[in-house]
Amino acid sequence: MTEKNSCPHCGALKHTPRSPELKADVTRRINRAVGQLNGIRAMVEEDRYCGDVLTQLAAVESAVKAISREVMRDHLETCVVERIQAGDTEVTDEVMELFRKFM
Amino acid sequence: MTEKNSCPHCGALKHTPRSPELKADVTRRINRAVGQLNGIRAMVEEDRYCGDVLTQLAAVESAVKAISREVMRDHLETCVVERIQAGDTEVTDEVMELFRKFM
Amino acid sequence: MTEKNSCPHCGALKHTPRSPELKADVTRRINRAVGQLNGIRAMVEEDRYCGDVLTQLAAVESAVKAISREVMRDHLETCVVERIQAGDTEVTDEVMELFRKFM
Amino acid sequence: MTEKNSCPHCGALKHTPRSPELKADVTRRINRAVGQLNGIRAMVEEDRYCGDVLTQLAAVESAVKAISREVMRDHLETCVVERIQAGDTEVTDEVMELFRKFM
Repeated sequence: MTEKNSCPHCGALKHTPRSPELKADVTRRINRAVGQLNGIRAMVEEDRYCGDVLTQLAAVESAVKAISREVMRDHLETCVVERIQAGDTEVTDEVMELFRKFM
Repeated sequence: MTEKNSCPHCGALKHTPRSPELKADVTRRINRAVGQLNGIRAMVEEDRYCGDVLTQLAAVESAVKAISREVMRDHLETCVVERIQAGDTEVTDEVMELFRKFM
Repeated sequence: MTEKNSCPHCGALKHTPRSPELKADVTRRINRAVGQLNGIRAMVEEDRYCGDVLTQLAAVESAVKAISREVMRDHLETCVVERIQAGDTEVTDEVMELFRKFM
Repeated sequence: MTEKNSCPHCGALKHTPRSPELKADVTRRINRAVGQLNGIRAMVEEDRYCGDVLTQLAAVESAVKAISREVMRDHLETCVVERIQAGDTEVTDEVMELFRKFM
């Protein structure tokens, strides 16, 4: 049985919990992105100009990328460092897989 | 005075309203992306594994891109065609600007 | 029989030839990108630091994107406008397909 | 004095030289990308259809991304693992900076 916050593939835990600051910042960013998406849904419904809708969609995409960067930075600084220090160098495969998803 | 759904820069209206099908589909996709973001916020809060959080963030980014493509397709098929047929070929500058934002 | 510079799918010609300025600029940019790639090949061969190699690869990717934007701008301003003015509004499908490739 | 293949910023060497296989593969890929760019320059010169030129440019962009992934994988498996094992956990900042450049 794996724990709730473990990796479903390898069973690895996130040993170092996220800091309250990181959680607060990610939550704030996600809330803002949700607000942007709700605004876009209204713009589409009200037949607002496509160019403006697309500009807002590009802004959401940038916002999501910024969240990803923040989570990735924490991932590298905690999980990746810890696993390499523990001798598990195969974590680099996982980083590559993530890198590929965002590239 | 410009109308509510006009372009704030050039005053151009979205002459052809979005179809009910497009609105329903974009709404459905936005609702799903909002649901994904809410799920990610919970995952971060519960210290779920970073790799899983990042995979979900990549999925949201893809979902937002898919919405952008759908709005862009409608934009090209309606506004852009109409403006070019009306002799306003400068709409190509706007398409380039949007293209740049998503590239 | 289609002409050499026509679209292999639809037979459409590039009716408006590229300007000498555009050709010169694209040629200059491509030559520079080729020079960058040759430099990267030498860096890899000489075991130069990966971070520097990757920074140069990111620069080449940006350079290629800039060329694509330039060709796309010309495409929109000539082929796309001309085909829409000639009543061929299906060119928007092709623009979407290109948009998808670069997104 | 830093050695030729060291990082200009931190002086770190690429301690583990690239394998002959990696060098051969990157060289082959770069040569192919250069060939593609030379082909595109000719297509532009000959007024070949923009859509075809853009499709080739998108292919070059993908090819450069694939080279970047290959160099990144080697970087993670050698430099990054070695530096973390040597206690230099600040290498994660550099990985983040690279990640940002390609995202």
